[in-house]
Amino acid sequence: MTIPAALTPKPRVLLGPGPSDVPHSILQALALPTIGHLDPAFLAVMDDIRAMLRDVFKTGNPTTVPTSGTGSSGMETCMVNLLEPGDRVLVGINGVFGTRMAEVARRCSASVTAVEGAWGRALDLNDFKKAAGASRFKLVCVVHAETSTGALQNLDGFSGFAHDRGALLMVDAVTSLGGVPFEMDAWGIDAVYSGTQKCLACPPGLSPVSLSENAVTTLQVRNAPVQSWYLDLSLIGQYWGTERVYHHTAPINMLFALHEALRLILEEGLDVRHRRHRTNAEALWAGLTAMGLTLPVPDAERLPPLTVVQVPDGIDEAAVRAQLLKEYNLEIGGGLGPMQGKVWRIGLMGHGSNRKNVTLCLAALTAALRAQGHTAKDDPLAAANAVWA
Amino acid sequence: MTIPAALTPKPRVLLGPGPSDVPHSILQALALPTIGHLDPAFLAVMDDIRAMLRDVFKTGNPTTVPTSGTGSSGMETCMVNLLEPGDRVLVGINGVFGTRMAEVARRCSASVTAVEGAWGRALDLNDFKKAAGASRFKLVCVVHAETSTGALQNLDGFSGFAHDRGALLMVDAVTSLGGVPFEMDAWGIDAVYSGTQKCLACPPGLSPVSLSENAVTTLQVRNAPVQSWYLDLSLIGQYWGTERVYHHTAPINMLFALHEALRLILEEGLDVRHRRHRTNAEALWAGLTAMGLTLPVPDAERLPPLTVVQVPDGIDEAAVRAQLLKEYNLEIGGGLGPMQGKVWRIGLMGHGSNRKNVTLCLAALTAALRAQGHTAKDDPLAAANAVWA
Repeated sequence: MTIPAALTPKPRVLLGPGPSDVPHSILQALALPTIGHLDPAFLAVMDDIRAMLRDVFKTGNPTTVPTSGTGSSGMETCMVNLLEPGDRVLVGINGVFGTRMAEVARRCSASVTAVEGAWGRALDLNDFKKAAGASRFKLVCVVHAETSTGALQNLDGFSGFAHDRGALLMVDAVTSLGGVPFEMDAWGIDAVYSGTQKCLACPPGLSPVSLSENAVTTLQVRNAPVQSWYLDLSLIGQYWGTERVYHHTAPINMLFALHEALRLILEEGLDVRHRRHRTNAEALWAGLTAMGLTLPVPDAERLPPLTVVQVPDGIDEAAVRAQLLKEYNLEIGGGLGPMQGKVWRIGLMGHGSNRKNVTLCLAALTAALRAQGHTAKDDPLAAANAVWA
Repeated sequence: MTIPAALTPKPRVLLGPGPSDVPHSILQALALPTIGHLDPAFLAVMDDIRAMLRDVFKTGNPTTVPTSGTGSSGMETCMVNLLEPGDRVLVGINGVFGTRMAEVARRCSASVTAVEGAWGRALDLNDFKKAAGASRFKLVCVVHAETSTGALQNLDGFSGFAHDRGALLMVDAVTSLGGVPFEMDAWGIDAVYSGTQKCLACPPGLSPVSLSENAVTTLQVRNAPVQSWYLDLSLIGQYWGTERVYHHTAPINMLFALHEALRLILEEGLDVRHRRHRTNAEALWAGLTAMGLTLPVPDAERLPPLTVVQVPDGIDEAAVRAQLLKEYNLEIGGGLGPMQGKVWRIGLMGHGSNRKNVTLCLAALTAALRAQGHTAKDDPLAAANAVWA
């Protein structure tokens, strides 16, 4: 074959559903010289990462580690470690990622009871109670931030409900961690996973997970071996813990990058960072509304890091995305699953949640829609600027 | 907590069992600006990677992709996709990684028959035949390069044997690919996995795998779903194939790095690269032998990318490694599993296999052993130089 040339990708502005823009210092950390996975210098990096992850998850859980795969590997890690064949699982489904949780649980030979809700809306705890009936469960699973629909789930009352039913509460925080308030311990969450490429502003490739003491006990007393050797937290924990037993070769450079990403988050401060995500999202929402576009998720359930926008009638949505990419090097996302072709997904995540990006996105989208005959109702930039004023 | 300082790890010379030294241009590729996993520019990168991986594996298999995890995830990928509960598997065990293959197969609810061989030696095909008896199997598994012992397996006759028993032949090429000749199609291999952090000279985090047409058919006709959603090649294949269906967010920057690593391999040429690994290993072997050290693997079965050295009586092996790291920033590996404390493992992999590294390693090891009272028998550097002459 002809050997391809070295890569020189054009930098993009990443306002899709992730990956998000990666700050320069994180890319530089990624390119630090690789060192060994048992080098004392690297073991110190691991300890830093665990401590910082606990701060970001707001937990004291010792079992808080990044698993060596993308966000979906974190979902699978929690499932395979906590489930045994025949276990009963109650899963909230109001989008692609709840659907995925149910699918992964079934592949662990669990018995899944689904709590179906409207896509684009949060779920109602009462629907969980109705679906549960008088049954007890091993896990209650819910998505905190549905990346496919842009709905944010209020988790009030979920841990009490789960624990009453003998279950652990497992939460998908892939698109929420680092972008909206998340309180693992205060909210009584037993298992959580996230991804690095959303509000943590790191490239994709790692999935931070954390297990509560009760979840660790569940893992310790299981009868069947964990069906995945690669994701077995009892083995992974011996490498991340004081034993330092080799399990698999850690993705060294990705962990350098995560170290820098967590540092930047703690330097900014979680509260400041959450407010930044909210303010920029409100500016985007104001601008999109001024353009005459519909945001299907009600304001109180809307997720600041990811906004879903209905494609107006008569607009070729893929052509709009292609034009933004070509003319502005600006990426926004299309719809996922049943929402494909019907919505756009605009991410304002991590480093990418800033005034420059919102302004560019509104201006570029206005122009692209105008090219297809759709005229803005009011001035989108004025509406956004009023939020920042 | 106190926020840790930004990382400034000391560059090491990585002569352990992996990760190996990463060339500058690969680290630079890793730090290229992150782009989206469905960006047309990224889809072109994926196509390049698949084509180059096929050249490096010496295969025409369409199902040739890097999985989003380290080498062990590749092992698990092959197992979970090809095995169903109750399937019979024949596994050669002469080190840690054969042991791991058997363990992963058991976690897939397979019935494992082990072919045990001496650690530090290659396995004998006749022992596979004896262990198999008259039985048929779903998989025959063998490690091409045992990273724990430094033994290289001659694969002659294995595919004929496996296919006669109705089995697919699955091979671990984690430490061989890119360092010693490997011919997937010519050798009749049905499933193979490797890792990026050995002879491919890329940071750890990806595991290239390839499946033959027969292996793909086995996957297509299975009854039970693949127990891992994350590693399900029928879903992953829809993203890497022409359909481009989103499965999980690809580890973009790691794939940029792999693209550059494969480019460098093909630019050097596989034959030249294999000869380079062999020559530098022979120089190392000559130098170690001149020092009076014992290499337990017989010459004909010795793996050029990874040399196992017996620790002389009375030497504190961990102190030697600590001294090399402290005084020379030089990493060599300790023993794994039952060989812990008894051997060192010296890797000459990928970019790290060069005259400078061999010379430094011999000089530094001579000095560290002398500090513990062990005097070299002959001149190690003269012995190594004679090989290069």
